[in-house]
Amino acid sequence: MNAKTARMHVLLASFALAAAARPSLATEPLPSWNDGEARQSILRFVESVTREGAPTFVPPAERIAVFDNDGTLWAEQPLYFQFVYALDQVKALAPKHPEWKTQPPFSDLLKGNTKAVLASGETGLAKILAVSHAGMTTDAFAASVAEWTRTARHPRFQRPYTELTYLPMRELLDHLRANGFKTFIVSGGGVEFMRVFAERIYGIPPEQVIGSNGGLELKKGPDGKPVLMKLAKIDLVDDHAGKPVGIQRFIGRRPIFAFGNSDGDKEMLEWTAAGDGPRFMGLVHHTDAEREYAYDRKSHVGQLDKAWDEAVARKWTVVDMKKDWKQIFGRPE
Amino acid sequence: MNAKTARMHVLLASFALAAAARPSLATEPLPSWNDGEARQSILRFVESVTREGAPTFVPPAERIAVFDNDGTLWAEQPLYFQFVYALDQVKALAPKHPEWKTQPPFSDLLKGNTKAVLASGETGLAKILAVSHAGMTTDAFAASVAEWTRTARHPRFQRPYTELTYLPMRELLDHLRANGFKTFIVSGGGVEFMRVFAERIYGIPPEQVIGSNGGLELKKGPDGKPVLMKLAKIDLVDDHAGKPVGIQRFIGRRPIFAFGNSDGDKEMLEWTAAGDGPRFMGLVHHTDAEREYAYDRKSHVGQLDKAWDEAVARKWTVVDMKKDWKQIFGRPE
Repeated sequence: MNAKTARMHVLLASFALAAAARPSLATEPLPSWNDGEARQSILRFVESVTREGAPTFVPPAERIAVFDNDGTLWAEQPLYFQFVYALDQVKALAPKHPEWKTQPPFSDLLKGNTKAVLASGETGLAKILAVSHAGMTTDAFAASVAEWTRTARHPRFQRPYTELTYLPMRELLDHLRANGFKTFIVSGGGVEFMRVFAERIYGIPPEQVIGSNGGLELKKGPDGKPVLMKLAKIDLVDDHAGKPVGIQRFIGRRPIFAFGNSDGDKEMLEWTAAGDGPRFMGLVHHTDAEREYAYDRKSHVGQLDKAWDEAVARKWTVVDMKKDWKQIFGRPE
Repeated sequence: MNAKTARMHVLLASFALAAAARPSLATEPLPSWNDGEARQSILRFVESVTREGAPTFVPPAERIAVFDNDGTLWAEQPLYFQFVYALDQVKALAPKHPEWKTQPPFSDLLKGNTKAVLASGETGLAKILAVSHAGMTTDAFAASVAEWTRTARHPRFQRPYTELTYLPMRELLDHLRANGFKTFIVSGGGVEFMRVFAERIYGIPPEQVIGSNGGLELKKGPDGKPVLMKLAKIDLVDDHAGKPVGIQRFIGRRPIFAFGNSDGDKEMLEWTAAGDGPRFMGLVHHTDAEREYAYDRKSHVGQLDKAWDEAVARKWTVVDMKKDWKQIFGRPE
C-alpha cells in the first residue's frame, strides 16, 4: 500500500465511522422541530439528566415531566374543546328539557349565541356543567365522551378534536419516555374527560392524567353492582395555584420538567423551577395564524401575558410555533 | 446400546429435563408463603392474566393491583402507626403549649391516657390532627415523618415501625410487578404520611400511593419561593365508600386485583369484583397472636366482620396468617 492509498483508506474509514456515529434521520429525536434554540434546549436538558455519572444526573424515578393540555398538547381555539363537548351535550339533551327554551344560559346556547353563554360567567357555566358533566355514572360519562370524539368535528379543520394534537409535542412526550421520564398531564380540563382519550392520543395512561375534578358518590346500580355517580360539585380546579396543589396531591413529587402555554401554567412552572438541581420550564407561544392560531396577551382563551414575561426574565424555553415547528398537526387518520 | 442401557438413558434424560424445568427454590415466587390454597389462588390468577393468547389474558396497562396498607402491608396494632406519630408530635410540641395541660384531648394524651384520647372521638382526633398534620409546609411534614420513622420504636417489637411490613406481602408486590402489574396503595392513612417511606419499604413510588388527604394551599415562602401549606381541612377520607372514589379519582381505571384486611376495604373489594373478566380479591385475616396479633369481628382497630362474611360467600381468598405465612416480618435491618 503506498502513501496515497493509505491516506485514502484512512479517509474512507473516517467517513464510515462518521456515518455510523450519526443516527439516521428516522431515529433523530424531535424530527418535526426545526433545529433552533427551543429544540436544542430540550435535547441538552434530557442529555444532562440521563448521563450516568454526570453531576446533573437524575435517577429515573425522579424524572417527572408535566404538561398542560389545552394549547400545549392540543389546540384550544376557538373554544376549549371540553366546552364544545358541554355545548353539544346540552343541544342533544334539549328535546327532553322544553323549559330550557326560556332559561339562560340554555336559551342562549340553543339559539347559537355562544358569546352570551360565555358572558353568563361562572354561574352560567356551572349550570351547563351540572347537566353535561354530572348526574350520571362515570362509565356513562366516559361512553358519551368517547362517542363525541368519534363524531364531532372541529369547525375550522373539519377533523375530530382528538386529531388536533401537536405532532412536535407528541414527539417530545415520546423522547422523554424513551429517556426514562414518566409523563403526566396537569390540566385545567376535567380529569374524567381527558382520561377517555389520553392513552390513545398521547400514550399517557389514566393514572397519569391530573385535572380539575368533581365529586363522586358510590351508589348501587340497578343490577346491585356498585357504580360511581358524578356530582355537580367541584373538588379541585386544577389551574393557576391549583396546579401545584394537583401535582402534590396526585404525584407527590416535584417535576423536573414542565411545559405550558398560558398564565394558568405560571404557578406550575414556578413550582417546578423552585426545586433543586436541573430543571426545564417551557412555554408554547401560539404565533402561527396560518397553520393554527396566533394569540397571547389579550386572548380570552389561553391568555399568555405574565407567564411570558417571567419566561423571558428567567430564560425559560419559549417555543415559537411558526418558527420552531415544521409541522403542527399529524396527518389525518 | 442394549435395551436396558437405552431405557436407562431415557430415564436419566427425563430426570435431567425435570430438573431443568423446575426453577430453583431461590426463584420460586412467594417463598415465605406455605403452599396452601391462598398461595395457589394468587399464582393461578397471575398465570391466567399473563398467558398470551389465553381468553383470560389482560394487557399490562390494565393490570392494576391495589393494596390497603394498615393491617394488609404492615401491622396496625396496638394503634394505627400514623396515630402513634400524631401522639408523638403532640408530646414533642407540648413544651410550647402550656395551655394543653388542661385542655382535652391534649391533657389526656400528655398524661398517657390514650383510652380517653380515643374516647374523645372525631372532635378530639380532629384537634390532634390539626396540630400534628397541618399548619406546616409539605416539605416540613415529610421531614418530620422521615425523622420519626428513624427514631420511633414499636412498643412490642422494639423495631422502627417501617420494619413491621409483612414479608409475604412484599413478596406478593414483587411477584405482581415482575408480571407487569402496577401496584398501588389505597389506604385510609394519610397520603403525605405514607409517601415518605412507601418507595423505600414497598417499592411503590409516591404517585402510586392513594390515601386520605387534606387541603393544600400555595403560598410564598420566606425566600420568595412557592411552598404548599397543609391545611386542617379534609378533602378525602379514603376508607369504606371513599376507596372506590379514591381509586377513580387517582387511577381512573378499575383494578383487577385488590387486597385488604378489614371492613374498611369491603367497598374496594366489591368495586374490583364488579368489573368484567378475571378478578382477584383477597383479605388478610390476623390469626397469629404469637408472631403478630389475632383479631377480627370485635376489634376496634382493623375490624373484620362483614367483609369476611362476604369473602366466604363469594369465594374470595382469605389468608390465614398463622397457617399461610412461614414468616411474618423481615429480618431486622
